Amino acid sequence: MLTQSRLYQEIHQQPDSLARLLDQQTTTIRALAHTIRDRGITNVVVAARGSSDNAGRYAQYLLGGVNHLPVALTTPSLFSIYQQPPRFAPDTLVLGISQSGKSPDIVSVLAEAERQGQLTAVFTNVPDSDLARNARHVIDLCAGEERSIAATKTYTGELAAIALLSALLSDDEMRLSALHEVPVFVQETLALNAAIAQTAERYRYMNDCVVIGRGYNYASAFEVALKLKELTYTMAEPYSSADFLHGPLALIQQGFPALVISPIGALSQEMLRFLGQLQEREAEILCISNDPAALAYAHRPLPMPVISEWLSPIAAVIPGQLFAMHLAYAKNYDPDHPRGLRKVTETR
Amino acid sequence: MLTQSRLYQEIHQQPDSLARLLDQQTTTIRALAHTIRDRGITNVVVAARGSSDNAGRYAQYLLGGVNHLPVALTTPSLFSIYQQPPRFAPDTLVLGISQSGKSPDIVSVLAEAERQGQLTAVFTNVPDSDLARNARHVIDLCAGEERSIAATKTYTGELAAIALLSALLSDDEMRLSALHEVPVFVQETLALNAAIAQTAERYRYMNDCVVIGRGYNYASAFEVALKLKELTYTMAEPYSSADFLHGPLALIQQGFPALVISPIGALSQEMLRFLGQLQEREAEILCISNDPAALAYAHRPLPMPVISEWLSPIAAVIPGQLFAMHLAYAKNYDPDHPRGLRKVTETR
Repeated sequence: MLTQSRLYQEIHQQPDSLARLLDQQTTTIRALAHTIRDRGITNVVVAARGSSDNAGRYAQYLLGGVNHLPVALTTPSLFSIYQQPPRFAPDTLVLGISQSGKSPDIVSVLAEAERQGQLTAVFTNVPDSDLARNARHVIDLCAGEERSIAATKTYTGELAAIALLSALLSDDEMRLSALHEVPVFVQETLALNAAIAQTAERYRYMNDCVVIGRGYNYASAFEVALKLKELTYTMAEPYSSADFLHGPLALIQQGFPALVISPIGALSQEMLRFLGQLQEREAEILCISNDPAALAYAHRPLPMPVISEWLSPIAAVIPGQLFAMHLAYAKNYDPDHPRGLRKVTETR
Repeated sequence: MLTQSRLYQEIHQQPDSLARLLDQQTTTIRALAHTIRDRGITNVVVAARGSSDNAGRYAQYLLGGVNHLPVALTTPSLFSIYQQPPRFAPDTLVLGISQSGKSPDIVSVLAEAERQGQLTAVFTNVPDSDLARNARHVIDLCAGEERSIAATKTYTGELAAIALLSALLSDDEMRLSALHEVPVFVQETLALNAAIAQTAERYRYMNDCVVIGRGYNYASAFEVALKLKELTYTMAEPYSSADFLHGPLALIQQGFPALVISPIGALSQEMLRFLGQLQEREAEILCISNDPAALAYAHRPLPMPVISEWLSPIAAVIPGQLFAMHLAYAKNYDPDHPRGLRKVTETR
């Protein structure tokens, strides 16, 4: 039964796991923020794979835009297989993000950062993992064991940890208190469960789709596409709306499904124009948004609560998680046992 | 007729355009290499979109692995729409890569880098473009006008410019002379044209595929997937083999097409193991490689000449370009007029 699946349960644990993270890890993240300031850190390099790499994309926008810290996603194979690691720029924070803390290629990036004397930190749900042993600052995602193969509560935990780091770095009480309201927004978003189960029916025979977001929600597009691939075997390809216009727009023809993630924010005008282009080409539009103007373009709207743009990815991924889960059921797949995947993927 | 298409002609101009670049731009690229050393540049930030972003991925591996310079791909919207640019780390080279030099978001990254007093350079086929006007060092791709909407000769030109920069930075005569042989390798690869036309027939009704490469050829996977999308409207999704194992492997079932780009190099063992995993799942394997062991896994091999791994992306993309072009013909599409695309995409 659906409500007994691990995935259903873990999706619904997110208000609690997020509240626990904010409650229990503010001290460790504050210590990291202090060290970043004390050491005059000028840039951040993220080592991650899969969902955690998507959390890294959020860090690019949030730490880049709000804290003015450039964030790069690194190339783990240079550290592992090639054994030709770049020399990090002086005053780099090397941040490993990994639910399990086990993937050897990610561990090798942190180990090299330690060798080079750079500041290291990890966000992980397993604080005694190999990865954690290779870092000075260990932030525990506090999500409780995640047993579903598709990451949900650890992904939103990673986003919240990044948001907390950003708020503490900018020493902004307003942002801190906004962040503490996120579990409530997530709870509200979960109330859409029944409506989304209905919506998913329509896509029983969907084989392909694109998932589009930009700016802060570029990460959401990648993460929702990954859930659709893992759980429903749909060819779901993520794009920024800008990259999409540089070529892949050619894919769109009448009825082609496009899931657009576009909460209210600095990109609203841009995204409305983009939705108009999709509509002209007669795409089948699904839209995760809290903007009535954006939702009006959608054949099937997936509404979410109004929330500040910088925090919106934590809420915007929830309808995507629910949609992927219900679509798995509609397609008669078992979301707890995606074919051929194990929970911990160890890549070199 | 096929041979009269612009795309066919531009693909076949690549030996000449590459030789011209190496001949005419060694001086400008040497000057850039000198400045990088004189100013003690510690890291590189690339601003690019589409094919040029894929060239940036090559720079991550080549400048990272050989020259130990970390290379980050930036997030243009922070500079354009959000107007919240990160502060570049001290001693950053900001490198714009763009065929047309026109996209406003890429221009905004270079303009901000100039404002922040960072070293700037652009690789472009239009040396009097807006982008070029915002940079100290302008490298002309010398490809001649590119009229096809799908970039081919400017992409390999971008790769060659990056390879030349790397060789001049490491002051390595062996590498320089290896690079000068690349036009010959590209010419040899073009001899596969007829065989690839034959191979493409089999995929007349292919709707989806994945394109997989890792390390230096991660860029090739992205670029070949982009050609397939632009020219054939196939849902072609690029992956590193490592990321693929973190979830998307679930997509693979009997007959699912996987195009694996795996020339001989440090990743060979890893890629052979990966090909074995695809074979176990009964994927339909296409393989671009110069390694008989890798080609042996393929239902349809796309062989390429033996070439050093660091230069292999310049040759490995060619069978992919030809395959996408012939598949467009097989599917009755006009490769010179992809639906709904213009040559210059201006995104904010």
